Amino acid sequence: MTVELNFTHEAARRSWVESANEPVADFPLQNLPYGVCRQLGWPAPRIVAAIGDQVLDLAAASEAGLLPPTVAAACREPALNALMGLGAPAWSALRARLSELLGADTCPAGPSRAAAGRCLLPASPAAMLLPARIGGYTDFYASIFHATNVGSMFRPEAPLLPNYKWVPVGYHGRASSLVASGTAIRRPHGQLKDSTAAAPVFGPSRQLDYELELAAFVGPGNALGTPIPIRQAGDSLFGVGLLNDWSARDLQSWEYQPLGPFLAKNFATSLSPWVVTLEALAPFRRPAFTRPAGDPAPLPYLADPADQRLGGLDLTLEVFLLTAQMRADGAAPQRVSRGNFSVMYWTLAQLLAHHTSNGCNLQPGDVLGSGTVSGPEQDSRGCLLELTQRGAGPLTLPGGERRGFLHDGDEVILRGYAEQAGARRIGLGECRGIVLPAGP
Amino acid sequence: MTVELNFTHEAARRSWVESANEPVADFPLQNLPYGVCRQLGWPAPRIVAAIGDQVLDLAAASEAGLLPPTVAAACREPALNALMGLGAPAWSALRARLSELLGADTCPAGPSRAAAGRCLLPASPAAMLLPARIGGYTDFYASIFHATNVGSMFRPEAPLLPNYKWVPVGYHGRASSLVASGTAIRRPHGQLKDSTAAAPVFGPSRQLDYELELAAFVGPGNALGTPIPIRQAGDSLFGVGLLNDWSARDLQSWEYQPLGPFLAKNFATSLSPWVVTLEALAPFRRPAFTRPAGDPAPLPYLADPADQRLGGLDLTLEVFLLTAQMRADGAAPQRVSRGNFSVMYWTLAQLLAHHTSNGCNLQPGDVLGSGTVSGPEQDSRGCLLELTQRGAGPLTLPGGERRGFLHDGDEVILRGYAEQAGARRIGLGECRGIVLPAGP
Repeated sequence: MTVELNFTHEAARRSWVESANEPVADFPLQNLPYGVCRQLGWPAPRIVAAIGDQVLDLAAASEAGLLPPTVAAACREPALNALMGLGAPAWSALRARLSELLGADTCPAGPSRAAAGRCLLPASPAAMLLPARIGGYTDFYASIFHATNVGSMFRPEAPLLPNYKWVPVGYHGRASSLVASGTAIRRPHGQLKDSTAAAPVFGPSRQLDYELELAAFVGPGNALGTPIPIRQAGDSLFGVGLLNDWSARDLQSWEYQPLGPFLAKNFATSLSPWVVTLEALAPFRRPAFTRPAGDPAPLPYLADPADQRLGGLDLTLEVFLLTAQMRADGAAPQRVSRGNFSVMYWTLAQLLAHHTSNGCNLQPGDVLGSGTVSGPEQDSRGCLLELTQRGAGPLTLPGGERRGFLHDGDEVILRGYAEQAGARRIGLGECRGIVLPAGP
Repeated sequence: MTVELNFTHEAARRSWVESANEPVADFPLQNLPYGVCRQLGWPAPRIVAAIGDQVLDLAAASEAGLLPPTVAAACREPALNALMGLGAPAWSALRARLSELLGADTCPAGPSRAAAGRCLLPASPAAMLLPARIGGYTDFYASIFHATNVGSMFRPEAPLLPNYKWVPVGYHGRASSLVASGTAIRRPHGQLKDSTAAAPVFGPSRQLDYELELAAFVGPGNALGTPIPIRQAGDSLFGVGLLNDWSARDLQSWEYQPLGPFLAKNFATSLSPWVVTLEALAPFRRPAFTRPAGDPAPLPYLADPADQRLGGLDLTLEVFLLTAQMRADGAAPQRVSRGNFSVMYWTLAQLLAHHTSNGCNLQPGDVLGSGTVSGPEQDSRGCLLELTQRGAGPLTLPGGERRGFLHDGDEVILRGYAEQAGARRIGLGECRGIVLPAGP
């Protein structure tokens, strides 16, 4: 980790790709997130790094001999798994090289800049695929505010269960239905049972919701039977993106006991295209969430002083809605919530250490979803279930529309970024999905 | 499906591989299950079919031109996924061809038999790998006897939840920690909390258990957003094997609310090497479980007259224990339970139709676990939790040992077979795993 870098000096650096130097750009020289892109004429997808409104084709850069030998082969793969599997020293070497190649100071006009320039192409959100082959997708529940809010609706008598402050609660999601940002989401059918009805019926969900989450990508992973200790857990994560854990609340409340959510979630989960490395986010590391007085300390296998000091992330996360009517009216997406990842009860390192503490093996490219990122404020709640009290208090949108849950044609847009004085703004980009009507 | 075949004629057929004609052989000519095997000198694993105490190398058979063109390429793959993806007509064609090649009547001594004979090698359980790359593993809860027994221990006030008779309850398991039969299982660490303790501790599980399950392998699968209707669901499954869903009950009872089992299960799940096709099991199809009077009928998306008539499987499933002391004494494994798959409340077709009913996509080689197969009788309970009332009534083994839960050194052996008058016995083979002490 580069937390000892001189951030002020770093923050002042500019790229010769001028669009990267705009003050609100998501992808300045200090970010350099990775994604996977498909282009006409390419026989296979390629890894790219974002810089301003351009992307650097890492396959081409590798073939041109511009990249460190340790990562050259991994950068020619059609997905990020191999690079993720190389581990932190290789990630740092690649990042340093890209920063050098794209920096105005380190790569003046000349043959090197020209060689890098030949690997640039315009960014195109529609060309972006999932960043990795995701073998395992685990979803956690790491916001105590979310857990308390949701628990109060599903179990008013016991909103927060006794294990919450001890166990980083998680469950396995469905990897096959992870989709790239921009993929339309079909409203699912399922069993629906009103609390007053004697029997369920089968039909389209009437309580379709989103969940704003952070996705963390696993690096080298671990062999079955060999846990990753908490002190190594932070360095075992490659980077983060945005995740929308679409949820059918009516299916969920009827099906989820006793084995957890299933069809309420596995019809689709959206991922943003860009994986922002934890190195890029180093200036935005914060102490882990301060547990309220009286809460238990984490058990030793989840406790690490360095993680307590730097395991939090000061990342602002926002949700926007754009309805069909708003699109017809030419209206801009409306922000419906804004929260911050630093309020999470469990750090990413704790999630990973817990996951492997029984010997469960993680593999490069596996995704750990944080769970819905909700804070203590009303407008920091990361799903409609919480924002509208299960539809009882609908949102009012520009144009006068109201939303308890999502309608067909609604587009959900997640955005995330880190900002602070003395550091360059680092953006996560967007995760988008529009709701299609249920099938026949 | 070949349910219209003349079973009596089929049952009388013999193989020229003499060991396949033994009355209690698991792998007669009528079975022909598929697996994946590794041998010294082979650059990659190969698909094989079991016949008596031999296996037929399908890669070699394919290269020798012995197999139908539709399956020839899939049979040269290092796993069964491609063959599973081809669908029922291709599966039937391959099965018919293998039956012809290996039948004493259809393949008399001569060049064809000699060509097939050159593809035979002795079976070796230790050489068998997982039969497929398993992208998705879903575990169900389809025995109402298991659900009621377990519920009475975890939730005495509500043993069977209100959704059970409506929803084929399931959840996502961990695919990365599926292991081949014979892989040793390390006892997991985890959070343990006695009901009287104020706080959990972290340590090795003291309540390690097995679960006897049937694994069904998905065939071609479905695209995201396109459910598989119940009428097509039966033909969408390639075959079945045995699955041991190792479970740490102490971890499970503390962690499982509200999102379901996680670390209590994902440290390892064992699969048997042989996938027995549903075609081979056609003579053992039975009416689906008869729901007790007063139980609701399945909702229309789960109801199919053909599945009601033939969705049950008359498969005997057994669990054996072999402790370290028994091994030292030269004792044989001791059977601790025997049940039958025909008591399952939900059919395999219902599990698959439910899984895809919201559009969730299944892929070739995905595994659907049935959940613990327990029947109404005490000795048909498929896990120690049920057999010993959570350890309160331990089993007594030969030599006088007692078991509430598993000890280090215990080996669990699952076996399964179908038998009836007028049909050849069809065996599933074995699924074995021995418990290793917890790591440091």
